[in-house]
Amino acid sequence: MNTRGQHLLAEYNGCDVEVLDDLKRIESLMNEAARAAQTKVVASVFQPFRPQGVSGVVVIEESHLSIHTWPEHGYASVDFFTCGRGMPIRAHEVIRDGLRAERSELMLVDRGLNLSGQSMQMRYHREELADPSTTITGLNDPVPIRPLM
Amino acid sequence: MNTRGQHLLAEYNGCDVEVLDDLKRIESLMNEAARAAQTKVVASVFQPFRPQGVSGVVVIEESHLSIHTWPEHGYASVDFFTCGRGMPIRAHEVIRDGLRAERSELMLVDRGLNLSGQSMQMRYHREELADPSTTITGLNDPVPIRPLM
Repeated sequence: MNTRGQHLLAEYNGCDVEVLDDLKRIESLMNEAARAAQTKVVASVFQPFRPQGVSGVVVIEESHLSIHTWPEHGYASVDFFTCGRGMPIRAHEVIRDGLRAERSELMLVDRGLNLSGQSMQMRYHREELADPSTTITGLNDPVPIRPLM
Repeated sequence: MNTRGQHLLAEYNGCDVEVLDDLKRIESLMNEAARAAQTKVVASVFQPFRPQGVSGVVVIEESHLSIHTWPEHGYASVDFFTCGRGMPIRAHEVIRDGLRAERSELMLVDRGLNLSGQSMQMRYHREELADPSTTITGLNDPVPIRPLM
C-alpha cells in the first residue's frame, strides 16, 4: 500500500462568529466537508472550549480532519490529512463557505514521499480572499489567490 | 485568548514493524506522548487498518495528536497541533523512541500568527538520524540533525 498522503493546513480569518461558537453546526460542517472530499467517516469527537470556541476531530479511514475555533478572533485553524483518493481542497471549499471566511490561508504538504531521502515537501502556501465584487461577475473561480511562497 | 499555535508534522521511517501494527501499544504510546508534551487528553480514538496498520487521534484541550502507520513500509505519519504551553518536541521524542525510528523528519509550522497579513509560517524542516555509534558516546543529544530548508 502506498504511503503517499496530502496534508492540508488551513487558517480562516474574518469568519462568522456565531458559526465558530456553535458546536453542532461546526460538527455538521466538518462531517459535510469530509464527505465532500470523498472520504469515509469513522468517528467524530467534538467539544466546547471555555469561555468559547469549539475543538474537534473527524476520524476518517487512514486520515483525519480537525478544527479549532476562536470566535473572539473570528478565526479557525483546520488540518486535513488524506491518503488515497481523498480531495482535501473540496473539504476546504465547504469549510470556507460554511464559516463565511473573508480570508483563507492554505499550506499543502505532500507526505510519505520517500523521494531522494526526503519524506515531506511543501507543495504550496497561498491565500484566498473572498471579494464580493468578483463573485458578482459569475466567474467559475471567483476567489482571488495569492501565493505566499 | 491568543490564537498562536504550533503544528508539528513528523514522519518516521525504519520503525519497528511489530510496534506499528500493535493498536494497543500505539494508543498507549500516543497518550504517553501527549502527557510528555504537558497537554491534557480529552479523548482518544484508535482503529486498525486492513490488512495492517493503525490510525488514531488523541484529542487534547485546544489541540490534537494523530498517527497513521504503515507496518509494511516501516513508516508512520504523525501530526501534533498545540496551543499555549504544549511542547510538541517532547511528544516527538517519546514517539521516535517508542517506534524505534531510524530516521525522523520534522516540519514545524507556526499557526495563528496574524503577522504582516500572514497567519502560518514554516519555522523549520529537518531530519534526525538515529546513529547507534553516537549514542554510545553518551552525548546529551545523540541524534544528528540536518536541516532540509
